Amino acid sequence: MTITPNHAYQTRFGKDVPCSITSDVINQQLTRATIRKFSGKSIEPGLLELLVASAQCTPTSGNGQNYSVVALTRDEAIDILDYENNKDILGLASDSQNLSALHTCDTLLVWLADLNRTNVLINQVPDIDPNVANQPNTAEYHLKAIVDASIAAQSFTISAESVGLGVMYWGALRQLPIELLEEKLNLPKLTFPLFGMLIGYPDTSVEINIRPRIDTNLILHRRTYKQITNFNDLSEYKKRFELRAIRDKRHKTLIGQLVDRLHVADCKAWIANSLKHMGFTFK
Amino acid sequence: MTITPNHAYQTRFGKDVPCSITSDVINQQLTRATIRKFSGKSIEPGLLELLVASAQCTPTSGNGQNYSVVALTRDEAIDILDYENNKDILGLASDSQNLSALHTCDTLLVWLADLNRTNVLINQVPDIDPNVANQPNTAEYHLKAIVDASIAAQSFTISAESVGLGVMYWGALRQLPIELLEEKLNLPKLTFPLFGMLIGYPDTSVEINIRPRIDTNLILHRRTYKQITNFNDLSEYKKRFELRAIRDKRHKTLIGQLVDRLHVADCKAWIANSLKHMGFTFK
Repeated sequence: MTITPNHAYQTRFGKDVPCSITSDVINQQLTRATIRKFSGKSIEPGLLELLVASAQCTPTSGNGQNYSVVALTRDEAIDILDYENNKDILGLASDSQNLSALHTCDTLLVWLADLNRTNVLINQVPDIDPNVANQPNTAEYHLKAIVDASIAAQSFTISAESVGLGVMYWGALRQLPIELLEEKLNLPKLTFPLFGMLIGYPDTSVEINIRPRIDTNLILHRRTYKQITNFNDLSEYKKRFELRAIRDKRHKTLIGQLVDRLHVADCKAWIANSLKHMGFTFK
Repeated sequence: MTITPNHAYQTRFGKDVPCSITSDVINQQLTRATIRKFSGKSIEPGLLELLVASAQCTPTSGNGQNYSVVALTRDEAIDILDYENNKDILGLASDSQNLSALHTCDTLLVWLADLNRTNVLINQVPDIDPNVANQPNTAEYHLKAIVDASIAAQSFTISAESVGLGVMYWGALRQLPIELLEEKLNLPKLTFPLFGMLIGYPDTSVEINIRPRIDTNLILHRRTYKQITNFNDLSEYKKRFELRAIRDKRHKTLIGQLVDRLHVADCKAWIANSLKHMGFTFK
């Protein structure tokens, strides 16, 4: 069943589209969902290059292009993730959607904040001022690289979805022991694996699951930021979220999900050290 | 003059498109450019809400939606930026493109990594484990929020460009004294202004300037990361970049630009403290 943009907007926001202007891109966004099961169909030769090239057209701070992406085939991905030992970190329990996504995808992408390239180049410049050469070690550049990588990854995603591919962001990938990723992917210092991304053609037998979102007026602030004070400010979203959870047989309240997702785990706690280990000290 | 996707690809990458599959989104990306002069035409009622809603359909880590955006009219933006005093930080010299962008745009958006909302909510949960309540103060969540905000902003950008709007990312905005932004935008702790964004309908009399990019095979790595060793690895890009610079009368070498952009400045150095000041300690 095809989902109309209006229906998707209703599901997400509980009301009608606020504007008659639209576009194919906006409609694509409204009706998109994360894909967790792929068909196994291969991505055509040259398409990955074109999608990365389209992502490279994204704005980049100071023309720095401080990001990279490592592409692994499904078999390479299964090999490097050492997933029998990292099941809990990666959410790869035997009945999990992540496991079915990994086993049916075409490619795993690892998106990197990458100041290594800039660092190598600046250190090649004769008589460079040491303070200039040190810039890739500063918080401003760490932030630039993380933003650059993230916005390029999202351009990639929208381009990929526009040719029928499905995408699953995999944030837990950065929670792997950093030494594992560093060694297996040959990552130099001043690169940081921000998140993984599984891609492939979707298994079309799986229903697209459009998820409700927080009311736009809580995300979009006019003139000044309006701080929320308690759960009542999210009451409309809470209704949509909980109705959807019942339908999806997830039986979770909004508070329940919030507490679940904020659980404490070693692999989350060591991210601070992982960042430092790769040179992202925010100093 | 309309730029074809193939022509744009040639300008950016110096060769033909690597794949016959394409889409309107990919073509839109290939032919896009940052807009630095707007027509002054107003954005239609409801369109900003729809564009933010389309950005809200972007994936978000653990359904956290840890971002916000503050929208200011042009007059509000000119007022809060205190730009006579912050000209150097914001690149607002009297003959600058940034100044003409600010004076002709419709709206300034300030994109925030926002863990404040989650923090307020989790502290409302009765008998919450203090370690769970502390999660918004950890590096993993600081990273999640920065990525969430960035990818939402890029979805916004592509949606905005799809309805004919132009966009200018304004990273220098975060280099303003953080106390100024905190006070003028009423920002609570655990929010951080990552970048600004000027939007409006483009002044169509200005030629679209398609910029060359690094060869895709230096951004896209197969199986493992391949580190560059020196400027020779970028020789093809260097040629494209320098030809373009001559055409644009910028007379800059690639090395020249690299050194320029990595200049040392107080406003860059204090970003580390700005992050800490707002609670983004990466601990």
